[in-house]
Amino acid sequence: MNKKIPTKIYLNEEEMPRYWYNLRADMKEKHDPFLHPATLKPCTAEDLYPVFCKELVKQELNQTNPYIEIPEGIREFYEMYRPSPLVRAYFLEKALGTPAEIYYKFEGNNTSGSHKLNSAVAQAYYAKKEGLTSLTTETGAGQWGTALSMACAFYGLDLSVYMVKVSSEQKPHRKEVMRTYGAKVIPSPSTTTEAGRKILAEHPDTGGSLGCAISEAIEVALGTPNCRYVLGSVLDHVALHQSVIGLESKIAMDKYGIAPDIVIGCAGGGSNLAGLIAPFMGERIKGKNNIRFIAVEPASCPSLTRGKYVYDFGDTGRTTPLIRMYTLGCGFMPSANHAGGLRYHGMSPIISKLYHDGYLEARAVEQTSVFAAAETFARTEGILPAPESSHAIRVAIDEALKCKESGEKKVILFGLTGTGYFDMTAYKAFNDKKMSDYIPTDEDLEQGFASILDIPQNK
Amino acid sequence: MNKKIPTKIYLNEEEMPRYWYNLRADMKEKHDPFLHPATLKPCTAEDLYPVFCKELVKQELNQTNPYIEIPEGIREFYEMYRPSPLVRAYFLEKALGTPAEIYYKFEGNNTSGSHKLNSAVAQAYYAKKEGLTSLTTETGAGQWGTALSMACAFYGLDLSVYMVKVSSEQKPHRKEVMRTYGAKVIPSPSTTTEAGRKILAEHPDTGGSLGCAISEAIEVALGTPNCRYVLGSVLDHVALHQSVIGLESKIAMDKYGIAPDIVIGCAGGGSNLAGLIAPFMGERIKGKNNIRFIAVEPASCPSLTRGKYVYDFGDTGRTTPLIRMYTLGCGFMPSANHAGGLRYHGMSPIISKLYHDGYLEARAVEQTSVFAAAETFARTEGILPAPESSHAIRVAIDEALKCKESGEKKVILFGLTGTGYFDMTAYKAFNDKKMSDYIPTDEDLEQGFASILDIPQNK
Repeated sequence: MNKKIPTKIYLNEEEMPRYWYNLRADMKEKHDPFLHPATLKPCTAEDLYPVFCKELVKQELNQTNPYIEIPEGIREFYEMYRPSPLVRAYFLEKALGTPAEIYYKFEGNNTSGSHKLNSAVAQAYYAKKEGLTSLTTETGAGQWGTALSMACAFYGLDLSVYMVKVSSEQKPHRKEVMRTYGAKVIPSPSTTTEAGRKILAEHPDTGGSLGCAISEAIEVALGTPNCRYVLGSVLDHVALHQSVIGLESKIAMDKYGIAPDIVIGCAGGGSNLAGLIAPFMGERIKGKNNIRFIAVEPASCPSLTRGKYVYDFGDTGRTTPLIRMYTLGCGFMPSANHAGGLRYHGMSPIISKLYHDGYLEARAVEQTSVFAAAETFARTEGILPAPESSHAIRVAIDEALKCKESGEKKVILFGLTGTGYFDMTAYKAFNDKKMSDYIPTDEDLEQGFASILDIPQNK
Repeated sequence: MNKKIPTKIYLNEEEMPRYWYNLRADMKEKHDPFLHPATLKPCTAEDLYPVFCKELVKQELNQTNPYIEIPEGIREFYEMYRPSPLVRAYFLEKALGTPAEIYYKFEGNNTSGSHKLNSAVAQAYYAKKEGLTSLTTETGAGQWGTALSMACAFYGLDLSVYMVKVSSEQKPHRKEVMRTYGAKVIPSPSTTTEAGRKILAEHPDTGGSLGCAISEAIEVALGTPNCRYVLGSVLDHVALHQSVIGLESKIAMDKYGIAPDIVIGCAGGGSNLAGLIAPFMGERIKGKNNIRFIAVEPASCPSLTRGKYVYDFGDTGRTTPLIRMYTLGCGFMPSANHAGGLRYHGMSPIISKLYHDGYLEARAVEQTSVFAAAETFARTEGILPAPESSHAIRVAIDEALKCKESGEKKVILFGLTGTGYFDMTAYKAFNDKKMSDYIPTDEDLEQGFASILDIPQNK
């Protein structure tokens, strides 16, 4: 291999970013504000304080400061697992026979197995600083719950994780990782909350849902002294914390004079994608580059490619503020797929706005082709990717193969958000050639759209 | 924290070792040779060629060259996952309140989840170079099988892994990782070999054993054109490949002027420990340092602390050459414990010889205390350690606490061989406070010792 650029670029401690980048401050048009579901008026900080930590609410509503300092106490935690490497995919390039240069930012080298830790540490830090003693959250696939367990263990906070019951039964190992970090894991619905008891009375055999787990976690936060609720995606302050992914990538690329032509990320709630693209998109908005940005979503849950850009609830339980975003409707039931982290009916408001304004492309891919890409990647680059991350791999490979046809030497950067150690049931289905592709019909979508509120803002 | 040394030290590509270090060449007394079990005479290269690759046999018998060049094709693979970081355990030190400086070399940041990949890549590389088309091996806990699957995928070799049946049922996810890398995984005993059919006829319900899996793998290798058998521990060529761990550690420490006072590693077959200590021990033998080396083994399988230094078979099936080593007897049945990688009746001949000659201490620890150390480590350093690796953590913490009492500022280095993602059943037992400690009685040991051959060399 003819190499000038090292296979893995690690930043030195002096090179690490000291500020998060708040992309919204540089967006020419801001996204629409959250609305209070009762009044349909923009949410104020006061509306959010009972549920969220103060500093996080401030970050959530801050659309003016482009740079927000990363506190030393958070940078200290970062040292455990950051910088993450920016990897030149020499082996994958060779296997594909492409003239394209492929890079990926690997966020899976930590025990939570994903980028989720970037926001977990920030949220736990601010909670501790504010004098809180405990946090609550919900988790589906378990990556967010694991990340938050790690952060709470470090800062000395109690944590209750409401884990969707069916997930906690299917992924008992995820649960044990959280317990090892000292978290209390409660299968949801549970008898510990009114919301849970109500659901259990109506549906005693239910396997639970993320919507119900959110309702339980919020109820406990509201009813417990010195406790708040935290969320791992969708919100702007989560995207802010995730900007460390893009910042480190850009510093590493700038150091070696590499300029990406295409930046690709998988998109569930959107926080990873928003974080990865942030500094590159900031320059794009200022006319300093002409990068193509591609959001990749599963064909089974196509919020960007087939959703509507309207106000909708963030949860199926209809308890959150209304968010203007691309959505399939909070009542949309995504058909089964193996990328639990991408089974969300909506999309982060920043990503939605960028897509709506034409700064971002979106592509929906089917899971069998995603796992085929995952297998190629595992065998060439040696890392077993998470199904979520493999959506980005799929499109990176497709773009690299287009370069092979055209002979173009494009520079492709994608986000490898995590590892697949806890997803072997999905890999088994693929290995056994028993994996199916589910694509919602137009009727399925219409059912979901019917759950969107009929309010003046949605006319 | 008052820091001069970075939390993580990564070597640049230019700093990476280009030679393995063959510690045996610098040992004043060499360990005794393997004996052919039929003749009781030292094994020759010709005895070993039908089973092992030629280059590996040469390495196995090479006791004269201290440095053996790492081929470029192997260093290329290393770039996927090496260098592994040398980590300063600032967070653990702070939690313990010790004046000791603790460092660990982390070998778990690759998909196999352990140091096993270091030898897997070398063995697959030489097999490919020799023109072989397939390999066979056995695996118990699955780390070795996974590592070899990755290496065979990279070099384009077919691989059959005989996996102890009970393990393949208890750890179906490990099996799927291997399949994802293209390996054929056969639960052992199987009907694919004479050895397997014989065992099944006698014990139709057996869960299998490592001894039986080895016999099956060797039988297939002997009966298949262009096929050889490979082994992941115990042998000298495996220790040679693992010297990359110690070499990288020493280069990183030298760069920052750090000199360890104590080096600690867990010991199952001994390859990780032999690799970690190699360059430090080489200098110790030459009188250039006065480092204490500590091998840590489970109290349930105490080959060094309670075994005999005699000639014994490497497998329970009595098919291998005779090895002079510390052993509990090839018929010893280790009581159940959760560190599958440390349930071996014997110990690498190099480690055995060093221990016998007083260069190395050994300590046996009980598993509940090991998991308590693992929990502390996970919560402070953020990495979920493998049960095997946690044996080294236990003793590192114990030594650091002694420093706390004495006020000494010792420098402790330990090997963190891998991650525990596939060991959550063990963690669950610990979290549920249902873990037991098994220590073999003297009678148990006598039963094992009875399986040792009554030959002149053992008088």
